[in-house]
Amino acid sequence: MRLTLNSPLDMHLHLRDGKMLSDIAKYSAKNFAGALIMPNLTPPITTIKTLKEYKERILKACGEEIFTPYMSLFFQESYTPEFLKEAKPFVSAVKLYPSGVTTNSECGVSDIDIKKLSHIFEAMSELDIPLCVHGETDGFVMDREREFGAIYENIANAFPKLTIIMEHITTKESVSLLRKYDNLYATITLHHLLITLDDVAGGLLNPHLFCKPIAKTYEDKEALVQIAINADKKVMFGSDSAPHPVSKKECCGCAAGIFSAPIALSALAELFEQHDKLTNLQAFVSDNARNIYNITTPNKEVILQKKEQTISKEFDGIIPMFAGKKLSWSIE
Amino acid sequence: MRLTLNSPLDMHLHLRDGKMLSDIAKYSAKNFAGALIMPNLTPPITTIKTLKEYKERILKACGEEIFTPYMSLFFQESYTPEFLKEAKPFVSAVKLYPSGVTTNSECGVSDIDIKKLSHIFEAMSELDIPLCVHGETDGFVMDREREFGAIYENIANAFPKLTIIMEHITTKESVSLLRKYDNLYATITLHHLLITLDDVAGGLLNPHLFCKPIAKTYEDKEALVQIAINADKKVMFGSDSAPHPVSKKECCGCAAGIFSAPIALSALAELFEQHDKLTNLQAFVSDNARNIYNITTPNKEVILQKKEQTISKEFDGIIPMFAGKKLSWSIE
Repeated sequence: MRLTLNSPLDMHLHLRDGKMLSDIAKYSAKNFAGALIMPNLTPPITTIKTLKEYKERILKACGEEIFTPYMSLFFQESYTPEFLKEAKPFVSAVKLYPSGVTTNSECGVSDIDIKKLSHIFEAMSELDIPLCVHGETDGFVMDREREFGAIYENIANAFPKLTIIMEHITTKESVSLLRKYDNLYATITLHHLLITLDDVAGGLLNPHLFCKPIAKTYEDKEALVQIAINADKKVMFGSDSAPHPVSKKECCGCAAGIFSAPIALSALAELFEQHDKLTNLQAFVSDNARNIYNITTPNKEVILQKKEQTISKEFDGIIPMFAGKKLSWSIE
Repeated sequence: MRLTLNSPLDMHLHLRDGKMLSDIAKYSAKNFAGALIMPNLTPPITTIKTLKEYKERILKACGEEIFTPYMSLFFQESYTPEFLKEAKPFVSAVKLYPSGVTTNSECGVSDIDIKKLSHIFEAMSELDIPLCVHGETDGFVMDREREFGAIYENIANAFPKLTIIMEHITTKESVSLLRKYDNLYATITLHHLLITLDDVAGGLLNPHLFCKPIAKTYEDKEALVQIAINADKKVMFGSDSAPHPVSKKECCGCAAGIFSAPIALSALAELFEQHDKLTNLQAFVSDNARNIYNITTPNKEVILQKKEQTISKEFDGIIPMFAGKKLSWSIE
């Protein structure tokens, strides 16, 4: 059995920089036609100049592959409508991180005060620049996304024409929010469709499945699976693939992030087939994103085959999600 | 400021065996007058012969220190009233592990069927041998102890004269159960009085604070702190100190267990003092246990001093809880 995907997209991707970028970009470039690139480098991407330069480095790292890096800016309270207007031709989104909630988010917003930020949200609305949000509070780890719900609702209410993407949603409450507001959308990762907190900390502790937001309950996972496999138009695939060297994972203080880029499409095919929804994969990994972001993509066919593979134990020194396990689908 | 503790006891301790036992026994032997020794070796302690031999090895590892190892047997469905009668002079408790819920628990009970096990519980009742239980189901990691509550209630109801110790309780629901049944008691660890899931997985992932049962919410922790600092007669200190080599902690699949024996009394003094309850520490770390277990202890004074210490980064190669952090109390 074969499945041809037209221009699959990964709408939430960490490609890092330097040697890591050179090492890992190829795994995304091979499997996808494009990806929304996260801006949380050190220092973060906050200017048009650094954004353009980063894009050049990404394209160079992707070599000959057909692959479009859709660039995002790291939300700053100091952004002006004029700056956003100037940036518009080069950016696909602005990504808002509450300060300190995840890797390299220290420069994020410490207080999401809608009034104080309204000129930015207004400008993004008018310019049709989507707002991507890492939606977690600094509360108890299992409650952070739920608690952030009120902030999503406030922004969605106050700026009804702003496209708001709830990034890497993990709870059934977030799924419910999508139903409530026309201008709320979401990315869903591979790992949040497949794992719960039990996989991270229920048996032995598994640093390679530790991520932010942390994986939640079986009920939460099921809500995500249902909306994904039914290709609801409000959701799209975003891997949040986030490589760290082994020394940052198998250690005393393990960094959050799961490296899934090389296996994402094969694992999604397996999941969608298990639910007899293989025909919906095209919408989840491409069509929905094109509609939500209103983007055209390079033409690129990626062919999946029902052929067992054993996931490599490492890719350029990075341990991937499900290292050593089997998948029933492979990229041709 | 000084605080003299009379015969402090650690009523839940993993001393392991072989070189690990030789390396770490001294930390418990120095600070405590005795401890209830967990029987989950490989293979587990299930016979009088192996129990006596293990006790000898422990005494040898403790050297000259005044220290009584109170021995426990690993609950087996095959135990008979005759065996328990014969074992009675040598054992302080029988420890029941549901199969597979924690380190070396594979030989545990796969189905806690009260009818099937009633002859054992009856015999333990009559012989006045306490039943210690690792109370977790195989459910979702945050719900396991709560789900096990029904089993505690069934046993407590069916065998009202059996002393049942809920080991290392972690939830407010377990605290409530103590109020409901006269024959239910509990041990509380140091770490469950000080940490929540946030400390394990809320920032960077910390394998050295990963344990079973996993640390829960702030509300759960507060319920434990209140019952401990008020020296409720239903609870006693049990460290569940459980050393693992670094290679089993900072790795791909990190083993559950926190090594707290060397710092436990100092950290407890700090906690009790913060709540202005220092005078209750004696009951929590000794008197309550003596009453619950109906044991006499060797006479041993352990003196704590209000003197800052920095916790060692390792003790014989084992990384302790809060390595490198400061405590305001020290053992004299």
